[in-house]
Amino acid sequence: MSESNQPASLSINGVEIEDTFAEAFDMKATRLIVTAIDHHWARQAVSAMSGFGTSVIDCKIEIDIERELSGEETPDGRPGYAVLAFAMSGGDLEKQIIKRSGQCVLTCPTTALFSGLEAERDSTNKRMALGKTLRFFGDGHQISKWIDGQRYWRIPVMDGEFLCQHDVPRIDGIGGGNFLLVASSLPVALNAAKVAVDAIAESPGVIAPFPGGVVRSGSKVGSKYKAMIASTNDAYCPTLRGVVDSKLSSRQNAVLEVVLDGVDFESIAGAIATGVKAACQAFGGQGLLAVTAGNYGGKLGRHHFKLHEILR
Amino acid sequence: MSESNQPASLSINGVEIEDTFAEAFDMKATRLIVTAIDHHWARQAVSAMSGFGTSVIDCKIEIDIERELSGEETPDGRPGYAVLAFAMSGGDLEKQIIKRSGQCVLTCPTTALFSGLEAERDSTNKRMALGKTLRFFGDGHQISKWIDGQRYWRIPVMDGEFLCQHDVPRIDGIGGGNFLLVASSLPVALNAAKVAVDAIAESPGVIAPFPGGVVRSGSKVGSKYKAMIASTNDAYCPTLRGVVDSKLSSRQNAVLEVVLDGVDFESIAGAIATGVKAACQAFGGQGLLAVTAGNYGGKLGRHHFKLHEILR
Amino acid sequence: MSESNQPASLSINGVEIEDTFAEAFDMKATRLIVTAIDHHWARQAVSAMSGFGTSVIDCKIEIDIERELSGEETPDGRPGYAVLAFAMSGGDLEKQIIKRSGQCVLTCPTTALFSGLEAERDSTNKRMALGKTLRFFGDGHQISKWIDGQRYWRIPVMDGEFLCQHDVPRIDGIGGGNFLLVASSLPVALNAAKVAVDAIAESPGVIAPFPGGVVRSGSKVGSKYKAMIASTNDAYCPTLRGVVDSKLSSRQNAVLEVVLDGVDFESIAGAIATGVKAACQAFGGQGLLAVTAGNYGGKLGRHHFKLHEILR
Amino acid sequence: MSESNQPASLSINGVEIEDTFAEAFDMKATRLIVTAIDHHWARQAVSAMSGFGTSVIDCKIEIDIERELSGEETPDGRPGYAVLAFAMSGGDLEKQIIKRSGQCVLTCPTTALFSGLEAERDSTNKRMALGKTLRFFGDGHQISKWIDGQRYWRIPVMDGEFLCQHDVPRIDGIGGGNFLLVASSLPVALNAAKVAVDAIAESPGVIAPFPGGVVRSGSKVGSKYKAMIASTNDAYCPTLRGVVDSKLSSRQNAVLEVVLDGVDFESIAGAIATGVKAACQAFGGQGLLAVTAGNYGGKLGRHHFKLHEILR
Repeated sequence: MSESNQPASLSINGVEIEDTFAEAFDMKATRLIVTAIDHHWARQAVSAMSGFGTSVIDCKIEIDIERELSGEETPDGRPGYAVLAFAMSGGDLEKQIIKRSGQCVLTCPTTALFSGLEAERDSTNKRMALGKTLRFFGDGHQISKWIDGQRYWRIPVMDGEFLCQHDVPRIDGIGGGNFLLVASSLPVALNAAKVAVDAIAESPGVIAPFPGGVVRSGSKVGSKYKAMIASTNDAYCPTLRGVVDSKLSSRQNAVLEVVLDGVDFESIAGAIATGVKAACQAFGGQGLLAVTAGNYGGKLGRHHFKLHEILR
Repeated sequence: MSESNQPASLSINGVEIEDTFAEAFDMKATRLIVTAIDHHWARQAVSAMSGFGTSVIDCKIEIDIERELSGEETPDGRPGYAVLAFAMSGGDLEKQIIKRSGQCVLTCPTTALFSGLEAERDSTNKRMALGKTLRFFGDGHQISKWIDGQRYWRIPVMDGEFLCQHDVPRIDGIGGGNFLLVASSLPVALNAAKVAVDAIAESPGVIAPFPGGVVRSGSKVGSKYKAMIASTNDAYCPTLRGVVDSKLSSRQNAVLEVVLDGVDFESIAGAIATGVKAACQAFGGQGLLAVTAGNYGGKLGRHHFKLHEILR
Repeated sequence: MSESNQPASLSINGVEIEDTFAEAFDMKATRLIVTAIDHHWARQAVSAMSGFGTSVIDCKIEIDIERELSGEETPDGRPGYAVLAFAMSGGDLEKQIIKRSGQCVLTCPTTALFSGLEAERDSTNKRMALGKTLRFFGDGHQISKWIDGQRYWRIPVMDGEFLCQHDVPRIDGIGGGNFLLVASSLPVALNAAKVAVDAIAESPGVIAPFPGGVVRSGSKVGSKYKAMIASTNDAYCPTLRGVVDSKLSSRQNAVLEVVLDGVDFESIAGAIATGVKAACQAFGGQGLLAVTAGNYGGKLGRHHFKLHEILR
Repeated sequence: MSESNQPASLSINGVEIEDTFAEAFDMKATRLIVTAIDHHWARQAVSAMSGFGTSVIDCKIEIDIERELSGEETPDGRPGYAVLAFAMSGGDLEKQIIKRSGQCVLTCPTTALFSGLEAERDSTNKRMALGKTLRFFGDGHQISKWIDGQRYWRIPVMDGEFLCQHDVPRIDGIGGGNFLLVASSLPVALNAAKVAVDAIAESPGVIAPFPGGVVRSGSKVGSKYKAMIASTNDAYCPTLRGVVDSKLSSRQNAVLEVVLDGVDFESIAGAIATGVKAACQAFGGQGLLAVTAGNYGGKLGRHHFKLHEILR
């Protein structure tokens, strides 16, 4: 009898890593850069812009700060932030980007708005309107300007001018990478999730768009109510252990999920590895019991992040 | 000859207060309370929930944190935040509240969600669904619970249960209270706006929903482009002083606006007084030159905040 | 046989409260108020001023922010912070207050410095120098000013003038109130401590001067090394359970302490009650196992905070 | 006639750069790394450790956070912060480092403490005690451990063990690099200083140890009071313009100074260039009028940062 028939076993610092995979989806994506006179004002703009952007289900977009940028890393030499945005279609993405830029960046003192993807510009990338649409706010007083082959708009506002790139490329991205932290108690799950999200914060090309990077309302497809396409993942709800066919043992009393969107497979795989390892190193043997991942049997999303491959 | 024909004159610490008024609109409003295991997690939820909520034009809702609450001020004795939300209709308000609660509070570890308006509950206030709608996420495992005449739902999630009040009252509110700070230069305008917003932060019943509480893209009604219902307020754009019929003198080089939504006239009037006085005390004689307000000739909104009445 | 001979038993939400007491010491105390043009600059000053102020042993002073103040709560109508400071003697307290005010408040843009104890001024309170000493920095250009029976100094600096009250009262305070959270694992202890400190943050008259309000290096009196007057509290070190006479059971793997200084007995007793209850409500049944307190057999400090009396 | 006799003239974006120099001093320096379970706890430790560390005059040490570190940049793979510290002598530096580590790092949950200078270790660098002294807190239960030629101590505490490097190298550093921002009004000076400090925050090898990175109490050597070795720099106090021999014109109403300590000449020169350029770009033509620097005629400190050389 060959051992290849036996289920593989993997643990990190005493934490069992389940032999399963996270199932993720094709999305359309882009990166924006918001700069301002200082980080305070840039942060006001990107915090507003990336709010209510946790899940495409009701927000239409998943959007968050990727990382802080120094003046040496931005197009206009001022401090700023890179923001990543993901949507189910290019149309949704463009519509949301325009609305959020108009309401949260155009309005915010001293900001400017740029594409963060210029390096990847090529003929295969479609462009989405940015200044191209927002310029009309200038009521005819806006001025076009070309710099290094890129078009920008200078739109007069009460604190001077809002500088905004004409358009931004749209690239392919992946949404819904994830892992679940299974713990003996709520405080362990909370701390493990925080450590994982803190470690991932430095990872380029990836965002964790839920509040604090974490989801506690994991969902399954379908519901007993016809109108609901998804409902609580009862198999992972500790209060339902005696009621449904639970995946939680009697020692497993709290589960939190980290959901990740990324610009490519490697970004998400790398972030999963970073986050899981940090949580296991911190709390293996102290109540972090297992790590698993969410999927739909592989039928819905074509990107499969196999924990054992990523973490070995 | 009577002096009553002469234009009134008012200044605070050397800053000229124009004899004009802010014109504001009827809105529908509500107050929500979000609690969590600590302020960190409560803040994650309300920050997400109140993002992209600067103006009803594209956000459909204007929503922001009203203030931080200690455990002694919340229904479940845990730390939290009060959030105020405003929309053009009760339908818009209910729809946005449900979506934002579902995406940003239900999802966030350890949170609970309550109405913050119970004291004002009476037969004349319509109720908007909250747990009434969100409970279906529980897929039949949710449990109803009555406490002190109020109905709540306990919805099983991966970290335990999400406790959510059944519904929340809807009250009348006012949106679009405002004042403009006119300064000799951008840094003066930035600092004066910051001081004003910082002072207003303590005011109950009012929010300043734009990024950092401030707008630099003041708008006028109409545009040379047919599709645009509003466009840049060119009379207050310093770069257009030589081009349009400007309201700015040659010394006035930067203008910022604070926009306020409130639960009643007094809240907004009080916040305008607090903010304007703080800015004038701080920077009168140092580059803050004038305070004015935005209106549409009194034709659009029925609430008029007359600066000279409020500030005398 | 009377029940009075039996050890009392008390638990809160399943967490055992030990029948012991925190032993605290007489200290000298004062409250200062730092204001500035906005909370940003006031916070820079008080953060600097209250750093390296965790324990009198090497810092000579225990000092921390008591709470944020709105403009309506400060002597000059500007936003600010109240700071509480404690030392072993009036001389130490005055010396440290002067040094820290000179290095961290006088230096910080736009700040002013006031006593926060005026209401309690009476003939029995000694006064400590503040502006009385700092004024000499003005090199003869400082100006004295009396307002409502209080003396102030206006000291010329590069951003205008530093306004500083002449002197501040010194009152009796209490240092070393404390409680220990005993948990099944580190993440539980961390979260329980955070919840306790977050709850106490609102309590008036009290500070938790250690980093984040928490101590992990609990100490016992004495050491095997002659020069050390205190050393690690080995009875509460989980890694020493098999080596020393431990107070930890095999399930108790992490302990954190909250240390409190207060202006009177009631402030500290109230804060202990608030903190312990919040932690127990949050994590009883989830790994928070017991609450105890640190004392020296009652021989060193004359203030005894009996947990069972405070928490019943 | 040669032009070489004419004073050099330099301006950046309309801001006059004076042809003068900052005079700085030899100091002893070191870099420490503090890590923890997440950035929250690491920040609590380094904030406490670097408080009351603005100037050697009364603090004995100048110490501040250099930058945030990801897990990939620290010795133990956990998130953390690099801290730079400077003192007038090696003895002062060692004494302060030990006290601050003992009171603010040893005490703080989950932290570990390392040298951040290993790469520069060589026979010429003296070593200062760290774990070598702190270990005695372990009361004999501490354990020595060698990794890659470095010695560490594991000291039992209530949350597990405090890991601390045995000793740290001491290097030569420079203290007192500086520049002054001269503005038309206080809000301009405040914003210009903030922009400069925000830009410098990314610079390696340098700290700006005053509150928010800024000093408003510039000083001159000497005083009319014998006991004072320094007093207010009256030539730069706007309120004294009519009273003393002022360096301020009637348009110059507020001055703020940024003081910099660095590990070498290049670090400070680079930070001066970065900060001055950012402030001038932001506020030239808007009230930032001139940039100058503080010196003592070149007689006291041997490091001279000539603005015209650095900024050309």
